[in-house]
Amino acid sequence: MRDFSGDHRWLSINTATVRKQGDLLQIFDACARHGIRAVSPWRDQVAAVGLDRAVRSVKELGLELSGYCRGGMFPADPDRRAEVRDDNRRAVDEAVALGAPCLVLVVGGLPQFSRPGSPPSKDIALARAQVEDGIAELLEHARGAGMPLAIEPLHPMYAADRACVNTMGHALDLCDRLDPEGTGALGVALDVYHVWWDPELEAQIRRAGRNRLCAFHVCDWLVPTADLLEDRGMMGDGMIDIPMIRGWVEAVGFKGYSEVEIFSRQWWARPLDEVLSVCVERHRSSV
Amino acid sequence: MRDFSGDHRWLSINTATVRKQGDLLQIFDACARHGIRAVSPWRDQVAAVGLDRAVRSVKELGLELSGYCRGGMFPADPDRRAEVRDDNRRAVDEAVALGAPCLVLVVGGLPQFSRPGSPPSKDIALARAQVEDGIAELLEHARGAGMPLAIEPLHPMYAADRACVNTMGHALDLCDRLDPEGTGALGVALDVYHVWWDPELEAQIRRAGRNRLCAFHVCDWLVPTADLLEDRGMMGDGMIDIPMIRGWVEAVGFKGYSEVEIFSRQWWARPLDEVLSVCVERHRSSV
Repeated sequence: MRDFSGDHRWLSINTATVRKQGDLLQIFDACARHGIRAVSPWRDQVAAVGLDRAVRSVKELGLELSGYCRGGMFPADPDRRAEVRDDNRRAVDEAVALGAPCLVLVVGGLPQFSRPGSPPSKDIALARAQVEDGIAELLEHARGAGMPLAIEPLHPMYAADRACVNTMGHALDLCDRLDPEGTGALGVALDVYHVWWDPELEAQIRRAGRNRLCAFHVCDWLVPTADLLEDRGMMGDGMIDIPMIRGWVEAVGFKGYSEVEIFSRQWWARPLDEVLSVCVERHRSSV
Repeated sequence: MRDFSGDHRWLSINTATVRKQGDLLQIFDACARHGIRAVSPWRDQVAAVGLDRAVRSVKELGLELSGYCRGGMFPADPDRRAEVRDDNRRAVDEAVALGAPCLVLVVGGLPQFSRPGSPPSKDIALARAQVEDGIAELLEHARGAGMPLAIEPLHPMYAADRACVNTMGHALDLCDRLDPEGTGALGVALDVYHVWWDPELEAQIRRAGRNRLCAFHVCDWLVPTADLLEDRGMMGDGMIDIPMIRGWVEAVGFKGYSEVEIFSRQWWARPLDEVLSVCVERHRSSV
């Protein structure tokens, strides 16, 4: 297992972590200032400054990407299928332009939340079938563009409204069916926040292997958690044994970035430089 | 599948649903007034009125029990093991006195939350081992008392602080190991709120079978969910296809009560009779 205590060469900042403190270019500049070598930007933050400017800034600062957030939100009524397809193809193309190693997929929950305006449904099995169809369709475009897709299983508390794929096992089942040869075109993004509770986690990491582990995201689970969406903890402040999980991930050969992704009103309220300093410190001590 | 639309013979009220509106005797009286035949009381509510008075009230009103809440909270430091054992044995004995068909087990999360004062730990695997040991030990006493134990898997969002058994599959693994003959001494309590998201739910219900399905709890998953603990929805107000799950449960032969267990600041703020009227109506229309 790599020793992170001495430097932060393998730290990446997901730009949602400091989304309230500045625009994407300000965030990129701050990362460079803190010696942070990699970032994972969100589409809306890219759109706000313009794709070209974002691409130029990444190049000028010598940043790498650890991912691009995000494609997905596949469940939809039939009238919105073209919208889903085109929107996701654009996400792939943006990821290519930015030089991302993968496009992270948050697959969507029930159609009325995944694509608002779709008629209400409680049929989570149908939503899951639409997710599989949607990924299958997008995979053709992504293969053509040379952009790997990374399915991110989300915590089961988001099953209704954000992602109906909620375990590594389910995400890997999709990989096995849609890319049985393991070409590298389809894999998973593992965020400790979503999967730390799963008794099968270690076994599923072994099943994924190096080939299908596209990204490793960290934050922490707080007790109490005051909000389902915006109360993630800084690494070390919660209940997740992050080094143990990183050990499992590295044991199968993962050598990529440890990407900090924290949605938190507490951390959004602090200055950009302070948050990045704490990320660096906790990357060294608690990841 | 039984037709619930015409009467509410198979409705049970978990007394936590109206815990803020009256003491246990008032809740029992109100249930009888509404023609509700079964209840599932909580230990603290029983203690508040006294076990003898609770037992007498159940008999006088001709109520049945669909369960007794709850034993468990097994993870603890070694100094607290005797406390855990004795506390759970008392719960079994109270369940016997009240004539409950099972004692529901909420198994506990990390020891510092399960038994406050225990040293902090992030070792969820150790907590799970302590749960298994604790159930094994309690099972001897429960067999002697003729009281079945029902492991309730809780939603993964409670893994750290309430229950580190979070899926039907995990609960049934424990049953298989601790009661391999399927004597009926150990089973599961299925609450749709906790397990509705699980793609393996139908298969695990079949695996459980009639013999290991001790209880069926209902409420609904709201979007948005404003609070992790106290924002459960009334049946029909959320995203869970409850009749589908009831169909699966009845397909394996379950013929017991449908127990309404709602922790909700919204519903706790409404009058007792109003809440029970809505429970009756939704039991008929949405369960």
